[in-house]
Amino acid sequence: MPFGDDVAAVDIGDEVAVLKSDMFVDLTDAPTQMTPRQMGRKAIVVTVSDFASKGVRPIALLTSVGIPRDFSRRNLKELALGMEAGAREYGTYIIGGDTDETSNLVVDCLGFGLAKKGGIVPRSGAKPGDILAVTGLFGKETAGLKILLNKTAVPSYLRRQLVRSVLFPKAQLKLGLALARSGVVTSSIDSSDGLAWSLHELSKMSHVGFVVNTLPSSPAAKRFADITRLDLSKLVLNGGEEFELVFTVRPDGWNNAEASARKVGARLYRIGETTEDEHVFLRTSAKRESEIEPVGWEHFKS
Amino acid sequence: MPFGDDVAAVDIGDEVAVLKSDMFVDLTDAPTQMTPRQMGRKAIVVTVSDFASKGVRPIALLTSVGIPRDFSRRNLKELALGMEAGAREYGTYIIGGDTDETSNLVVDCLGFGLAKKGGIVPRSGAKPGDILAVTGLFGKETAGLKILLNKTAVPSYLRRQLVRSVLFPKAQLKLGLALARSGVVTSSIDSSDGLAWSLHELSKMSHVGFVVNTLPSSPAAKRFADITRLDLSKLVLNGGEEFELVFTVRPDGWNNAEASARKVGARLYRIGETTEDEHVFLRTSAKRESEIEPVGWEHFKS
Repeated sequence: MPFGDDVAAVDIGDEVAVLKSDMFVDLTDAPTQMTPRQMGRKAIVVTVSDFASKGVRPIALLTSVGIPRDFSRRNLKELALGMEAGAREYGTYIIGGDTDETSNLVVDCLGFGLAKKGGIVPRSGAKPGDILAVTGLFGKETAGLKILLNKTAVPSYLRRQLVRSVLFPKAQLKLGLALARSGVVTSSIDSSDGLAWSLHELSKMSHVGFVVNTLPSSPAAKRFADITRLDLSKLVLNGGEEFELVFTVRPDGWNNAEASARKVGARLYRIGETTEDEHVFLRTSAKRESEIEPVGWEHFKS
Repeated sequence: MPFGDDVAAVDIGDEVAVLKSDMFVDLTDAPTQMTPRQMGRKAIVVTVSDFASKGVRPIALLTSVGIPRDFSRRNLKELALGMEAGAREYGTYIIGGDTDETSNLVVDCLGFGLAKKGGIVPRSGAKPGDILAVTGLFGKETAGLKILLNKTAVPSYLRRQLVRSVLFPKAQLKLGLALARSGVVTSSIDSSDGLAWSLHELSKMSHVGFVVNTLPSSPAAKRFADITRLDLSKLVLNGGEEFELVFTVRPDGWNNAEASARKVGARLYRIGETTEDEHVFLRTSAKRESEIEPVGWEHFKS
């Protein structure tokens, strides 16, 4: 059914309908430097990332947009172009939605997908002994946000890279779908609230613990930490607005998972192990162990 | 999949997935007298009404809620109770959603349903000769809004009735489903933007015109018009935030449609005919004919 009717509809088969909405608000989700086009795209990425973490392709999106009175037609067009570009980037379509007047810019993006029964990678499936892994390196977004919000001075090559990760985030959809297909992933979540928060969420939902023995630190975040004398582990663990996947793999499934990632031109980072005890530790040597607190990046104000 | 994971999912068969989102904003959709519980309920009703007009049962809802910082926990609880009550009232469930911080209260309600292929009543199916009908009488909501916004003084029995229609709107889900099942309805829309606007929308999408020969005026709206000396036809035609259905029926299907309505304890109001010429007229006698303009109620400010 075409857009322009009361409801939007898509054909489906004999499977499970997957629905997820995520509300993007300029006040909390966009630094002032973010353009309307970047905002539109990010609103899509946030929802697509949730689908990526579950290994489900988002077939169609609906976007409800709340528009401030002083938001220009030009900006609205830019926002729409960003949403369209984001949808296209992940092979999906915006099939409907709604608009209303609001004080903030609000984009609620709803994704719809299909999965086989039992084919959604849960947060709750991690078992003691499973390998803990992530799809990328952390800390760039938090460093980039600090640059945008606090005007921290860093060399321009570094600034460019860090800021880009904030303004142009990417969802790991291809990799998430490949990992789900591999059949060896036991639990998964995206890292939109930060790595530490994601680990605690998997821990809580799976009733397991984790020992992280390798911090997945981005080299750019490390350089930023060196320059600013900030704690690198905090940048890496307590960030947010990152869209990597945090997941567990059956002990015998690591080669399979790595091969699946290679097939889509990506790689995985093994960062630790799943334990029985429901705690999350960082253990960088036999003697150095500290608890990872469930602390994430607080939503920023623009 | 239970609430609390990245995505919400429901079982489906081999049919068409129906999706619709509607964004409720206190600024434009709630007079100041509306309680948080009433707002939560109304946010659901608006989306359910779109499903009613298409003859599709909303199986599940997702609600994304934007919450102002000064919105109290108690109010938030009331809002949630209102949303739950609204969902229960129409036999559906809230299976997920999102929350974020906003300046206005925003509730984006997404509905998901299933239909047989070709089983969604479109806006585009009206044919010349079809009977034009509605599911209720109009004007109460607009009168009620005027009382709330302008503090218009009317007798208390009348005030109660008119204000209630604003604060406690109802979607015609049972009747919409029954009409769709009857198989004689050729086009349908809800009247959330006013009767005149709905008629023009059906006209445009079906490439037909309408002659309205009986204004579906609510007796309470008529009393309000008498007291305030306002134009009753404007109250009836140019309202909004009403959730009746406006639809067309095959010329030989009227008895069937009426019987379907009676089975769910409701009745229909025949108000005119479908014509070839793409115009919408009000013809109250052989000599009195006037064009109905596509004017609806402008969103109000609270």
